[in-house]
Amino acid sequence: MTGPLVGDVFGAVVRDAFAVARGVGVRPLAGGRLPRPVIEIVERDDGLITGVMADGYLAEPDLWPAHDRRALDLVHGRVLDIGVGAGRAALALQERGVPVTGLDISPGAIAVSRARGVRDLAHATVEEHAASGQLYDTFLLMGNNLGLLEGRERAPAFLAALARMASPGARVIAQGTDPYGTTDPVQVGYHKRNRERGRFGGQLRLRLRYRDLATDWFDYLVCSVDELSELLAGTGWELAALDATDAPYYVATLVQTEGLVHAEGHRV
Amino acid sequence: MTGPLVGDVFGAVVRDAFAVARGVGVRPLAGGRLPRPVIEIVERDDGLITGVMADGYLAEPDLWPAHDRRALDLVHGRVLDIGVGAGRAALALQERGVPVTGLDISPGAIAVSRARGVRDLAHATVEEHAASGQLYDTFLLMGNNLGLLEGRERAPAFLAALARMASPGARVIAQGTDPYGTTDPVQVGYHKRNRERGRFGGQLRLRLRYRDLATDWFDYLVCSVDELSELLAGTGWELAALDATDAPYYVATLVQTEGLVHAEGHRV
Repeated sequence: MTGPLVGDVFGAVVRDAFAVARGVGVRPLAGGRLPRPVIEIVERDDGLITGVMADGYLAEPDLWPAHDRRALDLVHGRVLDIGVGAGRAALALQERGVPVTGLDISPGAIAVSRARGVRDLAHATVEEHAASGQLYDTFLLMGNNLGLLEGRERAPAFLAALARMASPGARVIAQGTDPYGTTDPVQVGYHKRNRERGRFGGQLRLRLRYRDLATDWFDYLVCSVDELSELLAGTGWELAALDATDAPYYVATLVQTEGLVHAEGHRV
Repeated sequence: MTGPLVGDVFGAVVRDAFAVARGVGVRPLAGGRLPRPVIEIVERDDGLITGVMADGYLAEPDLWPAHDRRALDLVHGRVLDIGVGAGRAALALQERGVPVTGLDISPGAIAVSRARGVRDLAHATVEEHAASGQLYDTFLLMGNNLGLLEGRERAPAFLAALARMASPGARVIAQGTDPYGTTDPVQVGYHKRNRERGRFGGQLRLRLRYRDLATDWFDYLVCSVDELSELLAGTGWELAALDATDAPYYVATLVQTEGLVHAEGHRV
């Protein structure tokens, strides 16, 4: 018995989903013959496992959840699309004439976004990209990517990197999900065990799997708005607006607190 | 870090797929709100992982692969549907007025088949069911369930149990898949390692997972027709007909060799 290889799971998923959507290239087949849908596997550290249909990563805006479309309407100026994925948001912004840079740590995602027409891409973490000296007016975290804040350990460094790339008046547009509206004992028990370990209830410990590949385990944050506010305290960012029309999904708009804007002003 | 619970994965999958199809009962939701497709996870002992859309288990015959419809036309007399699952084949046979018993080791599958209208069901292994003294004219193994032969260790006992339930002239109608038409190095390497361990190349070592449940590891055979013939030698069953129109998928018809029919004749 062996195990999966550590690799670029998300990149492989969107590469195959793109091949299926185009009908070109190597595509997953059942029994070497019947087309097979591309399904990303998300495994949680308590053994919970979920299959996610990958076609959503390539969807046109008319197929998005309404809150994703509204999030896109909140951007202004130069946009950094953090976790560009297969480029669905970056392509929609480009079509509107909005200047957008797609950022991703997945080489496969960068390759698919480029093949689909995203013009400005960077394969880097937020810290690495901040070193490039580029400034942005909007940091866009679509598709639950508020989760990239991970938790109390990671969030300050992540938000500080955004602050280093922030033009005056910059905002973060981040989509999240409140995980606490459930009575499912599997979820309620997980949240409880997380809190007992000093983590946020919805601080998920996950790895992604696809075919023979797996990622390392990583944290991904699903949090309430109150928890988000707690996480922002002292980071130089604060909650300026909230769209919770489609609760439990929400779109948070963060702006820099005055002190940080001032401090950043000195650096520029 | 904990692990999944051992449980009736397939039963949970078809129960949820049935709830989704009816729009009634507890259904899987993303974020507690958006409907989520029911996806069964199949994990192989080399780390390969695959998501399978569960709606196929409930599909009407017009949505089946053509070889499944042709397999159904090959039955005669009293039918034992081995691995009845969510009852798709048993329901189609009932509609034709064919007497059919649905057999499954999954309690959840039995419950869903009953709720969908399958009238005669048994929750048992083939050995346990053989002890009931019922006789059948056709043993139906749909949906790749030739795989239930597992390999050289399990096949003789499985086929002997069918022989004990066989009316004179009984046949097995079994759908299989030849796995060797691939050049995918992940598959070719797996087949090679299997053979080095004295197993059939396509003797898959699998477990099923869904949400917080997993099965124990089990063997499931995907074999060529030549390998099937090897496996049948000395079991009292032989290959009488083969429908390979939709290769690599095939439908094998097995009949009892004369010696065994004779021996069975003494028992009746």
